[in-house]
Amino acid sequence: MKKIAWIGTGVMGNSMVSHLIDAGYPVSIYTRSKEKAENLKEKAEVYDSIAEAVKDADVVISMVGYPKDVESVYASTEGVFNNVKKGTLCIDMTTSSPTLAEKLYVLAQSNGLRMLDAPVSGGDIGAKNATLSIMVGGDQSDFEEAGELFALMGKTITYIGKAGSGQHCKMANQIVVAGNIAAISESMYYAKNAGVDPNIVLKAVAGGSAGSWQVSNNGPKILSGNYDPGFYIHHFIKDLTLVEEEAGKTGISLPVVHQVLALYRQLLDEGYGQLGTQALIMAYKKNETDH
Amino acid sequence: MKKIAWIGTGVMGNSMVSHLIDAGYPVSIYTRSKEKAENLKEKAEVYDSIAEAVKDADVVISMVGYPKDVESVYASTEGVFNNVKKGTLCIDMTTSSPTLAEKLYVLAQSNGLRMLDAPVSGGDIGAKNATLSIMVGGDQSDFEEAGELFALMGKTITYIGKAGSGQHCKMANQIVVAGNIAAISESMYYAKNAGVDPNIVLKAVAGGSAGSWQVSNNGPKILSGNYDPGFYIHHFIKDLTLVEEEAGKTGISLPVVHQVLALYRQLLDEGYGQLGTQALIMAYKKNETDH
Repeated sequence: MKKIAWIGTGVMGNSMVSHLIDAGYPVSIYTRSKEKAENLKEKAEVYDSIAEAVKDADVVISMVGYPKDVESVYASTEGVFNNVKKGTLCIDMTTSSPTLAEKLYVLAQSNGLRMLDAPVSGGDIGAKNATLSIMVGGDQSDFEEAGELFALMGKTITYIGKAGSGQHCKMANQIVVAGNIAAISESMYYAKNAGVDPNIVLKAVAGGSAGSWQVSNNGPKILSGNYDPGFYIHHFIKDLTLVEEEAGKTGISLPVVHQVLALYRQLLDEGYGQLGTQALIMAYKKNETDH
Repeated sequence: MKKIAWIGTGVMGNSMVSHLIDAGYPVSIYTRSKEKAENLKEKAEVYDSIAEAVKDADVVISMVGYPKDVESVYASTEGVFNNVKKGTLCIDMTTSSPTLAEKLYVLAQSNGLRMLDAPVSGGDIGAKNATLSIMVGGDQSDFEEAGELFALMGKTITYIGKAGSGQHCKMANQIVVAGNIAAISESMYYAKNAGVDPNIVLKAVAGGSAGSWQVSNNGPKILSGNYDPGFYIHHFIKDLTLVEEEAGKTGISLPVVHQVLALYRQLLDEGYGQLGTQALIMAYKKNETDH
């Protein structure tokens, strides 16, 4: 059985690696905040350095926070590329920069290693229930080799194309999500101000051409004022900022994304980065008081 | 059995009234362009004036184009209110102004008549298959009386609230649809420019948190360049313009709707008003050449 090294055991990573452990894979772990791996200590080895965690691994998987973390995990002196054996398959599942993914792929190759970018969607619940969507970029043969591992963590697993494509697909996913959440927020904001019951409106529109995963899942939370994070605003800002950076590189502009990102940044400035993405409705409430 | 007078037999109205005729209701018809009722002539009486069509009716139903048409149909000298018997139930199913719906409700009452606003969503296919969503405003007792008729035309039939509420609900529906179509367009535009296959991306994202009726139904049309109208751009511009007018009355602003409406107006200016709403992607293609 393949030896796995897992890096990053936050909310997502913790659930995801658990599925591999439960399936019987020998797993070694490195995570920056050791207390986040407390629940895994009995079933996996937790190490104090990346070098120790990855040295015998056949496959390294990372699920960390920001592109700078991804770059440091793989490309720093103390990082993965400097400390694994030749031929190791490295898989970054963090939502990160497509450009960085391409760069790390090339760097991996020049070190005699292999690299996939495999970001996910489906949030904490998807990670827990192993129903994530996994979008994969890199060499198809590596994608196929990793298939048994992806199958333990997700439900919809898609090979998108060459290195960076997984990240591009995730960006495309986040663009749709951003527009949907904003549209639902504006719709409910409209209904409330028009004096009709948003709860009745939401039910009436959910079954037709306005229906969506976001309407069904975040719509009720928006109306009940439940802003608990399924997905953090500050993480979504990271994603949409990456979208804008990448779009800028090809000289295109995405006006709706731009608008939604501005609203989220406004909420971040007001101290709401730790709320869930459905709290976007608060940006509309705030504007209302400005009138 | 109730005698029905039906006004307006365009793409939507023609299918909708057919269901009433097929159910055995005696139907008299008035439509501005008589050739649009050609297929109905054998099963219903087609008249040259509203006055003739409505004079014996128990229920009058209208499905016309713009708010000005609705106002003229009901409130002009030659219109419904001046020519029906007392107590007649009038139902406007056009997507029209909520403010006008309230006004017509009051005017109907002062004429000893009853009025419902009952716009629909579900497009030409929903009208044909009698699977429309019908959103109804007015008196609840009138809504209940009309239930047998709505049930022949739609699947999800919801009483929203007082006069105008049906229209407000439809506005809320269109806000969500606008955001969704724009989000899908930006996502596919991004994917294409990032060099990944939008067809693979669409499939990968459709099953997760980005999934929606619009992704499933308009996504493939956007990618294949099939801009045949399920719903006309010029009608959607009418709807979103009404949204902005109503929002303005309560002093709120809806930045995403504003942005999407601007893109659609750009397409209208370029002569694309007769295409389907999924042709929004063309606004992005156009912008691209500007860079």
